[in-house]
Amino acid sequence: MPPIGLAVIGAGYWGPNLVRAAIATPAIRLEWLCDLDTERARAVLGTSSTVGATDSYDAVLADPAVTAVAIATPAGTHFDLVLAALEAGKHVLVEKPLTPSAAEGRKLAEVARRSGLVLMCDHTYCYTPAVQRIRDLIRSGHIGEVQFIDSVRINLGLVQPDVDVLWDLAPHDLSILDFGLPEDVKPVAVAAHAGDPIGAGRACLAYLSVWLSNGALAHVHVNWLSPTKIRTMILGGARRTIVWDDTNPGSRLAVHDRGVDKLEAEEMQREERRQVLISYRTGDTLLPALPEREALLSVMAEFSAAIIEDRPPLTDAEAGVRVLSMLEAASLSAASDGARVILADTEPMVADQFAAAGANG
Amino acid sequence: MPPIGLAVIGAGYWGPNLVRAAIATPAIRLEWLCDLDTERARAVLGTSSTVGATDSYDAVLADPAVTAVAIATPAGTHFDLVLAALEAGKHVLVEKPLTPSAAEGRKLAEVARRSGLVLMCDHTYCYTPAVQRIRDLIRSGHIGEVQFIDSVRINLGLVQPDVDVLWDLAPHDLSILDFGLPEDVKPVAVAAHAGDPIGAGRACLAYLSVWLSNGALAHVHVNWLSPTKIRTMILGGARRTIVWDDTNPGSRLAVHDRGVDKLEAEEMQREERRQVLISYRTGDTLLPALPEREALLSVMAEFSAAIIEDRPPLTDAEAGVRVLSMLEAASLSAASDGARVILADTEPMVADQFAAAGANG
Amino acid sequence: MPPIGLAVIGAGYWGPNLVRAAIATPAIRLEWLCDLDTERARAVLGTSSTVGATDSYDAVLADPAVTAVAIATPAGTHFDLVLAALEAGKHVLVEKPLTPSAAEGRKLAEVARRSGLVLMCDHTYCYTPAVQRIRDLIRSGHIGEVQFIDSVRINLGLVQPDVDVLWDLAPHDLSILDFGLPEDVKPVAVAAHAGDPIGAGRACLAYLSVWLSNGALAHVHVNWLSPTKIRTMILGGARRTIVWDDTNPGSRLAVHDRGVDKLEAEEMQREERRQVLISYRTGDTLLPALPEREALLSVMAEFSAAIIEDRPPLTDAEAGVRVLSMLEAASLSAASDGARVILADTEPMVADQFAAAGANG
Amino acid sequence: MPPIGLAVIGAGYWGPNLVRAAIATPAIRLEWLCDLDTERARAVLGTSSTVGATDSYDAVLADPAVTAVAIATPAGTHFDLVLAALEAGKHVLVEKPLTPSAAEGRKLAEVARRSGLVLMCDHTYCYTPAVQRIRDLIRSGHIGEVQFIDSVRINLGLVQPDVDVLWDLAPHDLSILDFGLPEDVKPVAVAAHAGDPIGAGRACLAYLSVWLSNGALAHVHVNWLSPTKIRTMILGGARRTIVWDDTNPGSRLAVHDRGVDKLEAEEMQREERRQVLISYRTGDTLLPALPEREALLSVMAEFSAAIIEDRPPLTDAEAGVRVLSMLEAASLSAASDGARVILADTEPMVADQFAAAGANG
Repeated sequence: MPPIGLAVIGAGYWGPNLVRAAIATPAIRLEWLCDLDTERARAVLGTSSTVGATDSYDAVLADPAVTAVAIATPAGTHFDLVLAALEAGKHVLVEKPLTPSAAEGRKLAEVARRSGLVLMCDHTYCYTPAVQRIRDLIRSGHIGEVQFIDSVRINLGLVQPDVDVLWDLAPHDLSILDFGLPEDVKPVAVAAHAGDPIGAGRACLAYLSVWLSNGALAHVHVNWLSPTKIRTMILGGARRTIVWDDTNPGSRLAVHDRGVDKLEAEEMQREERRQVLISYRTGDTLLPALPEREALLSVMAEFSAAIIEDRPPLTDAEAGVRVLSMLEAASLSAASDGARVILADTEPMVADQFAAAGANG
Repeated sequence: MPPIGLAVIGAGYWGPNLVRAAIATPAIRLEWLCDLDTERARAVLGTSSTVGATDSYDAVLADPAVTAVAIATPAGTHFDLVLAALEAGKHVLVEKPLTPSAAEGRKLAEVARRSGLVLMCDHTYCYTPAVQRIRDLIRSGHIGEVQFIDSVRINLGLVQPDVDVLWDLAPHDLSILDFGLPEDVKPVAVAAHAGDPIGAGRACLAYLSVWLSNGALAHVHVNWLSPTKIRTMILGGARRTIVWDDTNPGSRLAVHDRGVDKLEAEEMQREERRQVLISYRTGDTLLPALPEREALLSVMAEFSAAIIEDRPPLTDAEAGVRVLSMLEAASLSAASDGARVILADTEPMVADQFAAAGANG
Repeated sequence: MPPIGLAVIGAGYWGPNLVRAAIATPAIRLEWLCDLDTERARAVLGTSSTVGATDSYDAVLADPAVTAVAIATPAGTHFDLVLAALEAGKHVLVEKPLTPSAAEGRKLAEVARRSGLVLMCDHTYCYTPAVQRIRDLIRSGHIGEVQFIDSVRINLGLVQPDVDVLWDLAPHDLSILDFGLPEDVKPVAVAAHAGDPIGAGRACLAYLSVWLSNGALAHVHVNWLSPTKIRTMILGGARRTIVWDDTNPGSRLAVHDRGVDKLEAEEMQREERRQVLISYRTGDTLLPALPEREALLSVMAEFSAAIIEDRPPLTDAEAGVRVLSMLEAASLSAASDGARVILADTEPMVADQFAAAGANG
Repeated sequence: MPPIGLAVIGAGYWGPNLVRAAIATPAIRLEWLCDLDTERARAVLGTSSTVGATDSYDAVLADPAVTAVAIATPAGTHFDLVLAALEAGKHVLVEKPLTPSAAEGRKLAEVARRSGLVLMCDHTYCYTPAVQRIRDLIRSGHIGEVQFIDSVRINLGLVQPDVDVLWDLAPHDLSILDFGLPEDVKPVAVAAHAGDPIGAGRACLAYLSVWLSNGALAHVHVNWLSPTKIRTMILGGARRTIVWDDTNPGSRLAVHDRGVDKLEAEEMQREERRQVLISYRTGDTLLPALPEREALLSVMAEFSAAIIEDRPPLTDAEAGVRVLSMLEAASLSAASDGARVILADTEPMVADQFAAAGANG
């Protein structure tokens, strides 16, 4: 089977990484690096590369050697570029966020589905060994029912010209939620508070609360202004709690057998005063060994495997749309004094249950 | 001058610490440890102590050798105990929260003021070397205008029988805000999201947003269910940013000359395109040396000095009331889907400015 | 059974801790705090204590209510004070080092043995939950044969007037070795390099190598001049490796299933080239939960239990003498260009085996 | 000026890094990757490269387009490969250690000098921003006289087939010493203790003491068997102390104004008792901002600049030979029970001073 001919679109921040990963992926042959600034594309490729540099997206799409494109351009251009690629019969890998609106994302997902082409979102974190282990630990029941999630993703970051901090950083956290949560636990409502204390014209820090259908609360803190880099996610379960500290290679993932339990009803009935009985677990902590594997190589492997096996990728356009729905609701909430916004995609039954469960757990 | 005769009320979690600090304070002579459980009080004192153990609060208040009381009983008892002490002419140091409601707190503050007695809130953190340095760094202008504050105070904590996690832990963060912020920056509005995923009957984790009168956003995460202990506060300023990591003795306080700046208006006018210009500071970080001093000893020193000098203590009843107002607003918000609640004490002019500034900065 | 009447001798750095621990130990009744500076003793006790303060050691030893003494005076005074106490029929707990020479230590051990009195060394670290777990992990075979030990104990410390850094800090590490190593693994030889770069008149930093009878090498770095505090011990085993980081409460003890293995002989014979085959284990890491228990309370509990049960304590005078032998050999080596010194106590057979095993493993 | 034609020799562990760095260096044009295993070389280059892959070193040296070679083969091959390259008139960059013996290294240095060619050792760490700042801090006098150096470089490492852990890892530390120490502070003597607890046939852990001409003691701990990775160097100075923690990006370099001082002689004379007076500095800590620059790119830049400017590189063959002398002395010491070995290169006067200064500082 011949390798998949790929063109990378965009030679800015992320494009060079896609170039490097594509070159290192045996199932892929990199044909083009396309950027409006051809000089930049050439510089990324270096002087000893046979890959073509071009500024013509049309030429790339017209090249029959190109089977697939990987798009790493500003979010505002995604819709047109993805649509053109799909219409040219090319499979597409696209950076997050899929598009600037859920409606556009849904349209692209529909086009891809109709045409039988792979449309994959580069939700890179979902392909890290840590997140894949987290998904296993949750879905296998090892940590028990998910009770709360707290994610912090802050550092001194580039103030993006086209998106605010929510749309720049929160897609990582939301795609991890989408990927890792059990099938039957769905986001239901969102609230967000945002701030632009430097007058950048867009939010530079934001707090996002996501209520889940099982009553749990997830929370995300994203911030471009923090002098220190923190990337921590705590996933509290009824039986164990995971702490993922992505900047600490020595103990990136910890599974704590520590927590607070409420005693069961049977025991409680013996208590005449009916007071809630609490017990504490203070057991061992396990740091699971994780394979050393670069996430972007796994992204490329999944993209090429989905094309070859003619199947949806793990992080397909639907996943991208679900993330967009949460982002849109967050932006709406932030613009409305933090009012809670019920997600449009929530099935009526789930929304009713949530409403019946009462406000805040 | 003879030492101040003190009685400690309550031999539970915090009382023994007050006993130890009182014994170590030269200006104070500990007379009584009072607890409904006299055995417990005796055990705290040990077999070689001359301090009296009693279960009679009346007897303590009737003892002319007692000039002041330090109250470390459950919050629900504070109002009656403090009122009785003030009416008996005793100075009072009381644990946080001052009372379960701001209205009660205001009443106690009024009684203390009328009677010329010291009523001090034990906002212990305000007496740590770290927080005192933070206050200096802010109020001296060293970090510039405060732009954002993010505080995390989470660990596997005791689920309290009488208060939720907001009222248990957030008083620390809110009293630090109250103590450290410049005089002219006031909290204006509050929103909170809370969760009780273990069914304890009260919130075990909560997120609190506090909007400040200068447009900055402060945020507090408190949580009893986290297997790891995190106590970090980031105070972002226009010129520098402070990171306080209270569990890291090696670099408890860091002042970063790192951040994001918007270029000034004059420079911007030269820019015809009027786009926002961003620059980044990536300067050195300073870890200021902090004295090794136990906060509770400083609390006792301040309490005795306020009595001797007949002046209000640094953390007086007014400070306690301001913290209560924020806690009440947070509880109201959490019970209302996280709706933003304007603080009752906000002066009309400030509220107007805040409303005019628009929703979320 | 009435409590044991105890006198604490010395109100300097460590004495107040012994006072506090004695008061908190039910089996003990503190009778006296004895110091040449009576004012200091009184200040340590505080104004509300019934414990006597005295500067007369004779009076303490003459008091029939005193069954035992705990000595926390400079090392140079230990021999006379301990001897007098034993001759007065008192049990003795003494700070490390037991005496300034192994010969003196042996004499005291002999006196205690003849008189049937408890003579216990306060090797405090042996009573920490971490070291007790380490001993279990080693002696149960969980980590396999001990292959190497590396201990670092450095911080900005007090330059002691009477002892150098080896005699001040290394007793901790050496007593842990003595306590934790399996019965059949004995220290055999010692070498030490020391430095006094500030001209203090005694070594302020030192490196100590200890060869063990099973061929393993232990190494200790002690340093008074380091601006940062490090207290780490790595105990490498054939099957697992323990890392103890005493300043990191979040992961004080870690048991790593990581390491390098040589393939077994059977497998190797299949290799015609006879080259050494190496394999790597990169398994999980376990952070065992440790009880929260103050070591000094366990010291007091062991001291009183040994008295009551008329048995040698866990860290008896013999243990103290073994530590002194290593310290003496280290001082001798440091004064001899770091020449390797065979320990005097080494049994001839073990010394022969070690010599036969060749120089450096 | 045309770019320098370069051939990289060796496509094993380090070669691919040299390839990548060469491609990213404008002044260099990569012509060949040479390895006995041509397939491996081709795989490293990837399918889209125009660089040639060959297994013929002769062909590379015969190619007039090749001006320089970068050698990343096992240490045992360095002498022959470097000599052949120099004799063919090529400039040479060679991995550490320069050769397996100082005598061979001296010979190569002589050949290079006579022929006017650049012979540079890839002492990569000397080109990190951290080490360059350390050199500045030392040589500018900012930390005062160097008093002690402690370096730890341990992790679960590859047991090398051709060199022991001293020759594998200690070249890093020794080249940093050679690079960073002031001109007038020279290593004088060396002692080493090594262990092979797994029976690998070569030392897997080692402790190395290096006495400096100013009386200071440097110490290096290298270890292939540690489950955790530690790369820390403490450089104690009379005025300040540097702590370099290479695995901690948040505070890689810290300059502590903390330490122990002896009071000056004048002050001391006023003291009749002539006791040594000690004082403690507990000032602030500064974390200098470091540029983000990959060391290997700086290595390539220095190599090409030295060729173009016809000057010795910062880390020339002489530096390589000085490191080899220390390694040889360390091996000799380890094979002699840790006896102290005076360095052969030590000038007689320095050796005399050192001997006169007495054994251990």
